[in-house]
Amino acid sequence: MKIARFSHDDTIAFGIVDEEEHELVVLKADPMFAGYEPTGERVKLTDAKLLAPVIPRSKVVAVGKNYRDHAEEMGGEAPAEPLLFLKPNTSVVGPGDAIVLPKQSERVEHEGELAVIIGRIAKNVSEDDAEDYIFGYTIANDVTARDLQQRDGQWARAKGFDSFCPLGPVIDTHVDFETATIETSVNGERRQTGNLSDMVHSVASIIAYASSVFTLLPGDVILTGTPAGVGPIADGDTVEVDITGLGTLSNPVRSAN
Amino acid sequence: MKIARFSHDDTIAFGIVDEEEHELVVLKADPMFAGYEPTGERVKLTDAKLLAPVIPRSKVVAVGKNYRDHAEEMGGEAPAEPLLFLKPNTSVVGPGDAIVLPKQSERVEHEGELAVIIGRIAKNVSEDDAEDYIFGYTIANDVTARDLQQRDGQWARAKGFDSFCPLGPVIDTHVDFETATIETSVNGERRQTGNLSDMVHSVASIIAYASSVFTLLPGDVILTGTPAGVGPIADGDTVEVDITGLGTLSNPVRSAN
Repeated sequence: MKIARFSHDDTIAFGIVDEEEHELVVLKADPMFAGYEPTGERVKLTDAKLLAPVIPRSKVVAVGKNYRDHAEEMGGEAPAEPLLFLKPNTSVVGPGDAIVLPKQSERVEHEGELAVIIGRIAKNVSEDDAEDYIFGYTIANDVTARDLQQRDGQWARAKGFDSFCPLGPVIDTHVDFETATIETSVNGERRQTGNLSDMVHSVASIIAYASSVFTLLPGDVILTGTPAGVGPIADGDTVEVDITGLGTLSNPVRSAN
Repeated sequence: MKIARFSHDDTIAFGIVDEEEHELVVLKADPMFAGYEPTGERVKLTDAKLLAPVIPRSKVVAVGKNYRDHAEEMGGEAPAEPLLFLKPNTSVVGPGDAIVLPKQSERVEHEGELAVIIGRIAKNVSEDDAEDYIFGYTIANDVTARDLQQRDGQWARAKGFDSFCPLGPVIDTHVDFETATIETSVNGERRQTGNLSDMVHSVASIIAYASSVFTLLPGDVILTGTPAGVGPIADGDTVEVDITGLGTLSNPVRSAN
């Protein structure tokens, strides 16, 4: 099942995506907290503006170097334990929203990733139980100012700028980890390709590890790392991240004015 | 003026501290959003449990190595620009709440700091205007698992555990940067001492710098760095951080069970 957060006629609502009819079945409230109760209304997908499907109340937890080929291109190897860092909720934007290149950086890069949406308060969750805490999956772009990442050492600034965490287009309650591929393209040219099955640390092990550190709140987002092929984006580009079954997250790129 | 967030008779409220009468003047709502309208009720300070005076809706932005003597004890020098990192809002606890030592670390340390509470949405704020965006000041302990900080490289885990950001006891709308001292003691023994005037990067310059990266939301907290003398804390200890005019933030320490 696919869930969208969208605006239509000046209101923001949640809906279930009816892929056959290209419509949204409008829900009474956020299904993460209120279940799937329809209002009876339907909205054409073409009449809705899709928004970031979730705004974390607390944090975006991200994992560095979780695909071996990307760890190698960054000049290292995948760490034995997940390498965690944080992106603030103020970095989240939705599908179609601009990634704004900050003046402070000369080199901003795309990193297409699978995002996991936490659905229940999670603390010290075991790997076996981790799936019970997942609300669904979406696509993320872990946009990174590569020069500042290297200069600062800490990644908070380089990965924390406003607009550096596009999420969307929708949340799917299911993804097929055995077969799904993840691809990132810039202006239609493929740059990154990987298989979700190539992750070094599985989603369950990342949830177990992260929840042994931080309490994860409903709506918190976990970014699971990016495959090889990261590269620069420039004013006027369009970046698309595609994951089998989850659709395509597309964002234009523009310079800060 | 000092503002407290407190629980009393199973309700949570905000109040202005009447230091002469040792009472709280109860307010109708969070003064950050609703101004200072009293309900007419008063609560004895001894009958109230003070809570973390703010829970950030977005983030705790912290600055590393912002006192020269601490940068030296960590084996480096103070960076030319503020070195930013993030602590999640789930790490915040209040005065009197336990700092819980996680099993993953063999060495957890105290870092007493001045905390700045942001009162208005701040983006690309100039140093000259920064003060207009400050709601007030409180005391923080930037608790750090020193071994994990060194091992991980990224500080998100080492500084992000639940209970690793005690805040309180109250927010003061004013602090005297010329004369105020900051002291941290463990079990009554002084460990850290500094003067707020010794900060490398001023509060105004940190707000300008941070707001050029992230939008700061009302209730976001900025930790301004710690002076020399950081050291380990252990199960059964009591850590106190004292800043002239702001009172004392006291927290017991206990092991995770």
